[in-house]
Amino acid sequence: MNYTGRQKKLASELQGIGVEALLITHLPNIRYLCGFAGSSGVLVLHARASSPRLAFFTDGRYTQQAAEQVQGAKVVITRNPTIVQACEWVEKSRIGVLGFEGEHLSFSGYKQLSQLLRGKTKLKAAGGIIEQLRAIKDPDEIKQIRDAVLLAAGLFPGVLASMKPGAAEALIAGELELQARRAGAEKMSFDTIVAAGPRSALPHGRASAQSLPKSGFIILDYGVILAGYCSDMTRTVHVGQVSRAHRHMYEAVREAQLASIEMVRPGVEAGEVDRAGRQVLKKAGYEAYFTHSTGHGVGIEVHESPRLAKGQTQKLVAGMIVTIEPGIYISDDGGVRIEDMVLVTESGHDVLTPTTKDLIEV
Amino acid sequence: MNYTGRQKKLASELQGIGVEALLITHLPNIRYLCGFAGSSGVLVLHARASSPRLAFFTDGRYTQQAAEQVQGAKVVITRNPTIVQACEWVEKSRIGVLGFEGEHLSFSGYKQLSQLLRGKTKLKAAGGIIEQLRAIKDPDEIKQIRDAVLLAAGLFPGVLASMKPGAAEALIAGELELQARRAGAEKMSFDTIVAAGPRSALPHGRASAQSLPKSGFIILDYGVILAGYCSDMTRTVHVGQVSRAHRHMYEAVREAQLASIEMVRPGVEAGEVDRAGRQVLKKAGYEAYFTHSTGHGVGIEVHESPRLAKGQTQKLVAGMIVTIEPGIYISDDGGVRIEDMVLVTESGHDVLTPTTKDLIEV
Repeated sequence: MNYTGRQKKLASELQGIGVEALLITHLPNIRYLCGFAGSSGVLVLHARASSPRLAFFTDGRYTQQAAEQVQGAKVVITRNPTIVQACEWVEKSRIGVLGFEGEHLSFSGYKQLSQLLRGKTKLKAAGGIIEQLRAIKDPDEIKQIRDAVLLAAGLFPGVLASMKPGAAEALIAGELELQARRAGAEKMSFDTIVAAGPRSALPHGRASAQSLPKSGFIILDYGVILAGYCSDMTRTVHVGQVSRAHRHMYEAVREAQLASIEMVRPGVEAGEVDRAGRQVLKKAGYEAYFTHSTGHGVGIEVHESPRLAKGQTQKLVAGMIVTIEPGIYISDDGGVRIEDMVLVTESGHDVLTPTTKDLIEV
Repeated sequence: MNYTGRQKKLASELQGIGVEALLITHLPNIRYLCGFAGSSGVLVLHARASSPRLAFFTDGRYTQQAAEQVQGAKVVITRNPTIVQACEWVEKSRIGVLGFEGEHLSFSGYKQLSQLLRGKTKLKAAGGIIEQLRAIKDPDEIKQIRDAVLLAAGLFPGVLASMKPGAAEALIAGELELQARRAGAEKMSFDTIVAAGPRSALPHGRASAQSLPKSGFIILDYGVILAGYCSDMTRTVHVGQVSRAHRHMYEAVREAQLASIEMVRPGVEAGEVDRAGRQVLKKAGYEAYFTHSTGHGVGIEVHESPRLAKGQTQKLVAGMIVTIEPGIYISDDGGVRIEDMVLVTESGHDVLTPTTKDLIEV
């Protein structure tokens, strides 16, 4: 990964908004900027005219990991709270205006920061800058994400085989997760969703102890993390005889998903992608049952910028990778969701998820 | 669970500090107070003299789940952002001083809240109150946590059986996690640590693709969630011939762990528990290699109050459940950590983790 390139880009963004240095507390942002993958630390980037200067503060638990992973930043192992040490560094560096991540730093963290800086350094909320950089993936990231998507998709046939009537949702999830490890995944990118029968009407139906019913939809929504990058996919299959109503639901979601994908290209507003699928569901009479947004960016985090939702005016840019995942959820009956990951290319889009969207009966 | 009892206790705490209502955004706190286990929502507790009045705001994805789970609070499903809806409710309820969770609400969230309330309601950071209530477990919780601890401990013999030379750390973790699901766990309470050979010197060595070495320590640190409550345990085993140095390390950690456990009783300061174990390691010449604190509370979250660390003056109270987990980490050689969960009882303590601490050679 080109960490120094990212550090320079951030430094130039900061100079543009009059922030001399940025205190970075959000771990995925820290990982993006310097490679540290541990779970505690603070990074400061000082945006000097010549080249950015970075210091990373962590504690004794991460001495070895920081030495191995951190790039382009001085590593400081501290017995003090990392924020205290970082503030001393800021003061010594005579930084006049320090930005911080307003969406990630807690109110209490902000108060502590103010006290530590004793008015000598001005604080400025400067959130979202790194997230906007992260939204547009560089070629190394696109490759990593493709690999994560393909790894996860490769597990799908095995999951189908484990979907026998009477099998518990949790065991289907457990088998999938073991196979993911076997295939080299670091971990799952979120709690695996296996939601069968009426539970498929729960958009976030984490795998439960419930057994598969004799008939109904089964939503399977899962992703892996590979080399720090996430994947995310959903398929809905059907157990038992498919009624006409269920087939109609499924086809409506599939058509909506394809309509949204069709809209994906540089310059299109995120809200337009959402609208394209929503229109299809409206025509089919399901608008009220599509209770969430169409998609989100995926990268170091499984939910990141941009958001593909009603009215979002952010424009798509080549290099963004987003999910397209409309759904229909009908209480006491069931739900359908189909989700792919889609790369925005110069000329349009590239659907990364290779898995079939034909309705599979298990 | 006695949700209304908890709601009343919180209301009385709030009245004591002059806060009329509390805006609760931290999901584990929401779960503790009203039972909602989903991943998005805002709870407001209005501490009236008669009885507390609660409203829970969430979106359409959680209609069914909120109806099933939420107790003692009115459920409001909203298309607006939940925080907007909650602020309208606060205004309508003519609340003069609204507390918020300073440690959990972001700086940006606080700014948004201030704007929404338009100066009509005064804001006051009132963090840590629910966490202090949660630190002392009620009998229902103690039972749930005991069950989670026993479930996890029951998986240990199976893990030992899977520790064959050449087995990858990640597959040992994957098998363990599948067995946890089989035994009824909802999920793991944190990323399973399987750290073998020199990697055992990483206090947080998440299971990697690395295979078990022919000789060295293997740290296994894992926990499950059962009915919303966490467990957490660590054992260190050894593969191959145990050198005198390694046996010395192991015995020092075991002795330190027992010394800390011995200190656990009501009225003792958390820092004293830490000191008891640290003293043992100091005498054995390992003080510099114990780079973290001794333990933490466990409940709805795997890390909660109290913290058992150097200098902590908080006193232990019957009903607290804490981990006791000293360790030694020597770079390029290996590490040892032994961790139990311990209940503070009226008369002393009860070690919940039943697993042997004899050095096991696999």
